[in-house]
Amino acid sequence: MNAKLLLCLSLGLLLPAAPPEKVILDLTKSPHAKLRNVPVSAVRINDGFWAARRKTNVEKSIPTMLQLLEEHGVMDNFRRLSGGKKTERKGPLYTDSDIYKWMEAAAYVLQSENRPELKATFDRLTNEILAAQEPSGYLNTYFQGDLKEKRFTEMHRGHELYCLGHLLQAAIAYYRATGERKLLDGGIRFVEYLLKDFGPTKRPLLAGHPEIELALTELYRTTGDKRYLSLAGYILHGDGERLNLASQQLVYMFSGRPFTDRKIIEGHAVRAGYACSGAADYFIETGDPSYGKTLERLWADMTGRKMYITGGIGSRSAGEAFGDPYELPNARAYTESCAAIANMMFNWRMLAATGEARFTDVLEQALYNSVNSGMSLDGTLYCYRNPLELSGSPEDRIRNPWYSTTCCPPNLERTFAMLPGYFYSTSGEGLYVHLYDNNDLDWKLENGNRLKLKVTTRYPWEGVVDLAVNPERAADFALFLRIPGWSEKTEVLVNDALAAAEPKAGGYMAVRRRWKPGDIVHITFGMPPRLMASHPHVADNQGRVAVARGPLVYCLEQTDQRDGAPVLETSFVLSGSAAKDFTSEFRQDLLGGVTVIRHRGAAAARPFGELPLYQTLDRAERKPGKPVDLVLIPYYAFQNRGPAAMRVWTPYFRRQAMK
Amino acid sequence: MNAKLLLCLSLGLLLPAAPPEKVILDLTKSPHAKLRNVPVSAVRINDGFWAARRKTNVEKSIPTMLQLLEEHGVMDNFRRLSGGKKTERKGPLYTDSDIYKWMEAAAYVLQSENRPELKATFDRLTNEILAAQEPSGYLNTYFQGDLKEKRFTEMHRGHELYCLGHLLQAAIAYYRATGERKLLDGGIRFVEYLLKDFGPTKRPLLAGHPEIELALTELYRTTGDKRYLSLAGYILHGDGERLNLASQQLVYMFSGRPFTDRKIIEGHAVRAGYACSGAADYFIETGDPSYGKTLERLWADMTGRKMYITGGIGSRSAGEAFGDPYELPNARAYTESCAAIANMMFNWRMLAATGEARFTDVLEQALYNSVNSGMSLDGTLYCYRNPLELSGSPEDRIRNPWYSTTCCPPNLERTFAMLPGYFYSTSGEGLYVHLYDNNDLDWKLENGNRLKLKVTTRYPWEGVVDLAVNPERAADFALFLRIPGWSEKTEVLVNDALAAAEPKAGGYMAVRRRWKPGDIVHITFGMPPRLMASHPHVADNQGRVAVARGPLVYCLEQTDQRDGAPVLETSFVLSGSAAKDFTSEFRQDLLGGVTVIRHRGAAAARPFGELPLYQTLDRAERKPGKPVDLVLIPYYAFQNRGPAAMRVWTPYFRRQAMK
Repeated sequence: MNAKLLLCLSLGLLLPAAPPEKVILDLTKSPHAKLRNVPVSAVRINDGFWAARRKTNVEKSIPTMLQLLEEHGVMDNFRRLSGGKKTERKGPLYTDSDIYKWMEAAAYVLQSENRPELKATFDRLTNEILAAQEPSGYLNTYFQGDLKEKRFTEMHRGHELYCLGHLLQAAIAYYRATGERKLLDGGIRFVEYLLKDFGPTKRPLLAGHPEIELALTELYRTTGDKRYLSLAGYILHGDGERLNLASQQLVYMFSGRPFTDRKIIEGHAVRAGYACSGAADYFIETGDPSYGKTLERLWADMTGRKMYITGGIGSRSAGEAFGDPYELPNARAYTESCAAIANMMFNWRMLAATGEARFTDVLEQALYNSVNSGMSLDGTLYCYRNPLELSGSPEDRIRNPWYSTTCCPPNLERTFAMLPGYFYSTSGEGLYVHLYDNNDLDWKLENGNRLKLKVTTRYPWEGVVDLAVNPERAADFALFLRIPGWSEKTEVLVNDALAAAEPKAGGYMAVRRRWKPGDIVHITFGMPPRLMASHPHVADNQGRVAVARGPLVYCLEQTDQRDGAPVLETSFVLSGSAAKDFTSEFRQDLLGGVTVIRHRGAAAARPFGELPLYQTLDRAERKPGKPVDLVLIPYYAFQNRGPAAMRVWTPYFRRQAMK
Repeated sequence: MNAKLLLCLSLGLLLPAAPPEKVILDLTKSPHAKLRNVPVSAVRINDGFWAARRKTNVEKSIPTMLQLLEEHGVMDNFRRLSGGKKTERKGPLYTDSDIYKWMEAAAYVLQSENRPELKATFDRLTNEILAAQEPSGYLNTYFQGDLKEKRFTEMHRGHELYCLGHLLQAAIAYYRATGERKLLDGGIRFVEYLLKDFGPTKRPLLAGHPEIELALTELYRTTGDKRYLSLAGYILHGDGERLNLASQQLVYMFSGRPFTDRKIIEGHAVRAGYACSGAADYFIETGDPSYGKTLERLWADMTGRKMYITGGIGSRSAGEAFGDPYELPNARAYTESCAAIANMMFNWRMLAATGEARFTDVLEQALYNSVNSGMSLDGTLYCYRNPLELSGSPEDRIRNPWYSTTCCPPNLERTFAMLPGYFYSTSGEGLYVHLYDNNDLDWKLENGNRLKLKVTTRYPWEGVVDLAVNPERAADFALFLRIPGWSEKTEVLVNDALAAAEPKAGGYMAVRRRWKPGDIVHITFGMPPRLMASHPHVADNQGRVAVARGPLVYCLEQTDQRDGAPVLETSFVLSGSAAKDFTSEFRQDLLGGVTVIRHRGAAAARPFGELPLYQTLDRAERKPGKPVDLVLIPYYAFQNRGPAAMRVWTPYFRRQAMK
């Protein structure tokens, strides 16, 4: 092997010759992936639910966010280092990651669409960023200049690896979008800087905020350089002993000690979610069973005891952290948008590893509710917190254009931008259909056979989905149709005949047959309003129900209540038949077009403000009060009309008990 | 006026000639006190509920706590400054206050009992403390020595005034106990140091942790020196603008801006409670109506929206703070013992200002429950937090012998030591009876007539109270008998005849007559178990009830459940008659002798661990499960037999709804 090739290898420059696929995760060579990603570019989302959100994302949210990032000096932080501007560094120490996440969003847009201006902007930013990179490869605007001596001395808070991770993710997404690798090479130079000085036998390294683990694994997938995977493994194993970390830091960061020793999901929710995502990536590559076991345990702890019905995670403001089991307060829910995104990321990887629909169910739950709520309908306001109850006071202005820690807005933008990549997967047996919305798929099966699919639906407003299946030529394969866990009655017709397999809620229904061009699959998911109850240890939700319909969780918002009864003082009145008590109606004029749910409930007989804090039960026993017409809207759309009281979990009376 | 007299005046040395009364608050000359304190020394508590707790306090708690304070270097912190020991200063910056609070406890013991050894210890500690005092008057072990330059530069956290306040309170209590004023003079020297350099036209001053306000007002009452009252007023008004404090600091500290501008009770619960107590003291002296109005508003906010049923306050661990209105989680309740004591202090002062029983109700509620729970039955373990639910895990070891911040243990000790001072008050019309336990009162009416009272009762276990009234000679005056808010049916007999007045729950019943030696008052309070419900906005308590009986709140503790059903998975089954469903039984063998409450409830049909986090209501609808015998104990006695699951608020089923 000649010296030049050796150098290329050591720099990870030996990339595969074929143009990169525009996927979220490149699992083509991952030995322990059950499913493989289908490119973002292979799925065109047509007019419908997500197309509208994605249009706003590209046309409003992404451009205005770059403007705000510029106004707050995030790019000037780079320019000042390369001599362009003599200014003070602005913002918290992790601002670099904000622009990187924005760039990743832009890169995913470029995977779907040809937008020369956006590409030019990306290239300009790349140049400005790399102009600040030291010859050593080090790049971080906070720890260059005056604070140079501090680099890698405060890893529990420094966010140096976190920023690098986001740089790498942006660079990989752009490389996949365009085949251009300037930013990627810059990122690799920083990784090489790390490999030189850090590791088990060198200086210790710590992911104070996990993120680098997923980026390094994807870099390994992109370059084939195993050293990047090893570095991810080293960081996941944690070198906390050498770093002398306090036990509460190990909890908060969800890193620093062996990932595989973890028994519960805890600490900072975004950190924990990213760590689990990185560990799942690592598991997909290594198949290490102790990772698999730990991931299952943490997932079960999260979804079985620590997740909101919206798919949000992280109950506590203090430490932005998971709470104790069943600690799920509504008004004080922290549920950071980034944490809901982390939940999606974690589940997407678990789905790839296992092919099991329970992961897709949680991904969909988070996507449609707690992620979707994070961006306003007009694309210019963002939630940091996504609580399940608001008092309506002006202090409850939960949607804002800017946060000094502006992690969530570009995170939402990249998530909507990469959304087509979440719609499908392939396995050796055929095609998996995960999410339902109007779209055209143009991709191939793993045996190379081309396959087109056209999906037509009014999902999530209606449960009917038509799939026009168009293989290049007739062939035997399976269509794995996801039957959401909430769909209690599902009917699947293939060319007007009932499918042979049984559609089981919460699973993938394998429709195996010889598919030929022009085949039609007609699915009807049962989508009546559902009344959901919580585990008896969720203190906030006892005697209360949440209304859900399809993948959407609903809420009562004051704005919709014509008769003005305070929503926080109303109750549902149940006859025993949800179908009779709750009716659905599509309202094109409302909130960009939503299905509302109507219910004849009750307003409190006596204003709550008049009630004492404690009284004897016989005095306190509540009566339903006067009947009122209540209107529920999808949770994700809350507070798009200014501050108003809102709640997801509503008390109820039973009609029979009222007699 | 000669120079010496002037000096005496300026040093506040001109004390009243008469020996000081052994009172908690000396309101003899307070122009706006409706009621006046009756000395601790005038009330001898006889065998019964409080006598047992107070015996443990004096014989176990107080001596072992001094030992622990010594072991942790709290006194060495003084000795090292006077050259006695060359050691490092130990513990957090407020340790001086811990020994001062212990000394105040000792001083109150000396108001009740002649204990020469305890007095000798107090005198020795006084000498050691004052040996560390600078000639300037300054005294604080943290800010003497190396950190001298820092004094009064970090007032938001420095606790210098807080420590001085506790020194003054200890000194005043000892002066009242013994007539000796060495420590008092030392405290006054420090106050004079402050007056020299600080004030509206001098350097600004801030109570980073309120406490000095009450101490200065009591110092004014003790010495008659108005400058001390003015200084208290200046601190209550706050000089935050000159100190450039952040708004969240003003919330947290509950000081630094005008007390009379406060609209809600918020921030650190102990700080807020002490600030309110100091402001109430100031109001009693000045009658400033803006103080009266603010105090009423804050009290209403606290008791109507932010107080646990145990009288505990401070819902949040983060900032040890009050929560939002109705934010009263049970398992995560912070409810520091010191905060419950602050609640008592605040109400005692409001009672003195108004003579209204609503304040005594809250005082009793806090005393019997959230204060009383703070010290273990054997007097050697203390609660910092007093939560209303415990999981039973070993991490829930909530009673500990020592805390590095050991504010609560000596605070509990001083509260139990001063308890006789809370039993009675006088007004111009007669005697107020606040608390009921076996005791002998030997005091006088405000007209000087001697009055003895002998109270015999099994309160709080039984509602019958006998008062033998023995005025020196027959005289017209009123006995104001407190009828607790919880006593729905009360009968009051005077010499076997129904009293003319109507006993109204939550008020003082004025029994006005010509009292003569040998008169007997026989009171029967209704004391059946009560089922208490919460305001509908207290999320944790919906569909749940707490059991109370007399002044005591009850709880289910795992230890008492013979059949082993997990208490956190049990429910009450209610027929509509609490008297039928809940029966009381005194158990001499249990927890030092308590009345337990028995109930035939239900255990969950399916262990909660098997239940999903969310499911549809029809699947989730709970059935009571198998009948179990449940035993409730008084809340204050929880976790005296090791960690165990415990809860106050229990879900219930209605028997009729089960059919």
